Amino acid sequence: MLEPYLERLTAFQTARVLFDWDESTIEPPMSNSLTSKVVGTLAMEEYQILSDSTYQELVMELKDNKELSLKEATVVKELAKDIERTSKIPAEEYKEFTILVSQAGSIWAKAKNNNDYASFAPTLGKLIAFQKKFAGYRRKTGQDLYDVLLGDFEEAFDKKALDAFFARLKEEIVPLLKEVSKKNDEIDTGFLTLSYDTKKQDSFNRELARYLGFDFEKGVIAESEHPFTTNLHNRDVRITTHYYENQLDSAMFSTIHETGHALYEMNIADELTQTPAGGGASAAMHESQSRFYENIIGRSKAFWEPLYGKLQETFPEQLGNVSLDTYIRAINKAQASLIRTESDELTYCLHIMVRYELEKLMIESDVDVMELPKLWADKYEEYLGVRPKTDTEGILQDIHWSFGEFGYFPSYALGNAFASQIYAQMEKEMDVEAILRSGDISPIQKYLAEHIHQYGMTKNSRELILDVCGEDFTPDYYVEYLKDKYKRIYEL
Amino acid sequence: MLEPYLERLTAFQTARVLFDWDESTIEPPMSNSLTSKVVGTLAMEEYQILSDSTYQELVMELKDNKELSLKEATVVKELAKDIERTSKIPAEEYKEFTILVSQAGSIWAKAKNNNDYASFAPTLGKLIAFQKKFAGYRRKTGQDLYDVLLGDFEEAFDKKALDAFFARLKEEIVPLLKEVSKKNDEIDTGFLTLSYDTKKQDSFNRELARYLGFDFEKGVIAESEHPFTTNLHNRDVRITTHYYENQLDSAMFSTIHETGHALYEMNIADELTQTPAGGGASAAMHESQSRFYENIIGRSKAFWEPLYGKLQETFPEQLGNVSLDTYIRAINKAQASLIRTESDELTYCLHIMVRYELEKLMIESDVDVMELPKLWADKYEEYLGVRPKTDTEGILQDIHWSFGEFGYFPSYALGNAFASQIYAQMEKEMDVEAILRSGDISPIQKYLAEHIHQYGMTKNSRELILDVCGEDFTPDYYVEYLKDKYKRIYEL
Repeated sequence: MLEPYLERLTAFQTARVLFDWDESTIEPPMSNSLTSKVVGTLAMEEYQILSDSTYQELVMELKDNKELSLKEATVVKELAKDIERTSKIPAEEYKEFTILVSQAGSIWAKAKNNNDYASFAPTLGKLIAFQKKFAGYRRKTGQDLYDVLLGDFEEAFDKKALDAFFARLKEEIVPLLKEVSKKNDEIDTGFLTLSYDTKKQDSFNRELARYLGFDFEKGVIAESEHPFTTNLHNRDVRITTHYYENQLDSAMFSTIHETGHALYEMNIADELTQTPAGGGASAAMHESQSRFYENIIGRSKAFWEPLYGKLQETFPEQLGNVSLDTYIRAINKAQASLIRTESDELTYCLHIMVRYELEKLMIESDVDVMELPKLWADKYEEYLGVRPKTDTEGILQDIHWSFGEFGYFPSYALGNAFASQIYAQMEKEMDVEAILRSGDISPIQKYLAEHIHQYGMTKNSRELILDVCGEDFTPDYYVEYLKDKYKRIYEL
Repeated sequence: MLEPYLERLTAFQTARVLFDWDESTIEPPMSNSLTSKVVGTLAMEEYQILSDSTYQELVMELKDNKELSLKEATVVKELAKDIERTSKIPAEEYKEFTILVSQAGSIWAKAKNNNDYASFAPTLGKLIAFQKKFAGYRRKTGQDLYDVLLGDFEEAFDKKALDAFFARLKEEIVPLLKEVSKKNDEIDTGFLTLSYDTKKQDSFNRELARYLGFDFEKGVIAESEHPFTTNLHNRDVRITTHYYENQLDSAMFSTIHETGHALYEMNIADELTQTPAGGGASAAMHESQSRFYENIIGRSKAFWEPLYGKLQETFPEQLGNVSLDTYIRAINKAQASLIRTESDELTYCLHIMVRYELEKLMIESDVDVMELPKLWADKYEEYLGVRPKTDTEGILQDIHWSFGEFGYFPSYALGNAFASQIYAQMEKEMDVEAILRSGDISPIQKYLAEHIHQYGMTKNSRELILDVCGEDFTPDYYVEYLKDKYKRIYEL
């Protein structure tokens, strides 16, 4: 019987989610010095189940059982993946890696703070070496090492698929960005950085989330340093935002973004929630939902037509004389910059491309870690036309590699492309613009819930795209969407 | 080795505290329908440790070990108490009782809502019968049943001690209340129920808590329906309050009250926190700290001398013309009423006395549960001079009996008496009024931390009183304090 194991795994994981949420939103500054011990003990309970031989045998036996329902088969598949991944790695090496990861975070943070890449480089080198070695243990015959790592985050896309995807983006976006850059002086964004009372921002953001379909019976919004979404199950989904008095669009678009993630989790089928099949299909598919709401819908003129008047009423002094068209152009301004998390819709995928290309080098070549900052800077200059002056605003900016995670970044770019393809299909089935203008966007929310969200992990991202769109994934829609949109915004 | 068991117990208990906190402060309305399953699984983990025979043997062996440190001996004593309590009750009966308790809460809530005592009476009857039976299993030879239950909450005070205590109170307070009541028309409290902006209340309350010594590095304040204090350990102590626009004093005095509880938990020694010895000495001693701050300090004129100006500045329209003396009289008005939780300092112990006398009847006689509402009303009329018109504002008002808990109420009254005795001693050692007037009350906070808080459960309440005051507990100080104070306030 697998059930009692799953019940306990769910309990420990849910507790960990709650402790994480609490840490990011409310716990007092000194709490963690003692709470971390509690969290460690709960993690150990979880680890003991996952490494229990009876549990592992149960899972592996069930894996070949042909009589399982789709839900059961998905659960078993997910559990088996974990067992297979770790069972091929010698326990002693895995433990060394875990210890290294637990130290790497603060080494990275300090290095970033002091612009001192050299102090992080040896740790990064070791993390790379571990993941290369582990990928070697885990790979199928003939499989490339980086493909092993990519598979941990997105089983349906390998290096070959991503190479083609990014090549296409490079070919189309880099020249488009150059054209756009020439006309950037024409777009005024100064009014977005006036003083906006954060309590009024908070009220407006809550209404905005509600308007998008965020269900406050099943969810809460709080504040944290960095916005994120988490959930205990499909009836308890939590998002955060962060208000800046002098940056109106920052909190608003992060609220829309996190609401996109939240709607996914709120709409996962009841029979899947609280099971290992009860998450999103993949990180990229999750990101497609947040980006769909944030960019494709949330930065469109039709979306703001019924809402902009309310925003003006909330901030009459700041926005009373700003027309809807001026506002729409401002929130869509594209400008090459150095920091991924602050980048716009057009340049975002170029930031990802830099990381993708570096990860390939790290995992599949013997690149010297001390060479990486220069490679990073060269690629930024080539694709975005800007060059970081420091490593803090260069290779040290993201936390991901300090977790020992390589292969996650492409998910961000893929998510954008998924969103565009789904949007193109949606437009064939309904008049999306008219729905946005109507002030009731529930048909859009229902479409995504019905075609994507409810399935949880029972379909992978490629299967979902195929089922929703009637064709395999292609980057064409994404490229067309960006070209079309930016030619319109910039009147090219 | 007991250590691994304790580590896991602490982890599960801390997780449960966090889930409870989250439920009371932020979780979305529908969350609990699924989260309760998770909490149930964690409770089962805890139960399995506590009923594990190896664990139980370890504890019982250590109980007689003379080489333990005071801390270790206290831990073992607390653990052994639980084992002894449950091991004498047949497992099947205990399970029946647990199921009954899990249902009783909602039966009670519904009965209270509908003023329908008859629908709760059979459940109450069963809960009483179980506790009588269990006390019978657990009692020492010759011990009275109610004493067994009292001992669960306050090991140092039995029925004999409490009888004497309450007799003294009855003799002194009932006539005092009658005198006070005659002059109540002279005290104006109307200004306390004007409109007070709740955001301004919130700011003032936070400053008030900080002034009392609440350390925001180790604690947070949030809002909930009913104010309470909880803690994960001594570096994470959380209180809540509840703001009413038309009742200025409500949130203020609950903040002071809960801060009193919080200071206790924040000051428990580092070596005791996260162990079974890391709580307050008893419920009554905990209550003594909250009541000390709320009533003895918090309603005194000297306390408000450095603060009242700030309160007036916060609410100039409402309080600008109210003198400090008028304010002090208003926040100390005593008036017989029906509801314990809304009662004032003078009448509070009379509410407790009613419950104490009824509990003795329930546990030590064969009183018919259908007779209890009349007995309740008669006693209210006798002691307080008021008679409930409904059971909702009578015997159904408190939740405690629906937990199957009998013997807890006396802690509330004892706590007040402890506070008065500690206060009398403190006055011998320092000029408390001068300290209050100075605007820096840290000497008071340090005194309590040093003499009481730091010890956790390594001393019981009676030992603490003896060590702090140099004499055994006596109700004299409490009676003198009340008489003195109310004669002053009412100019009797």
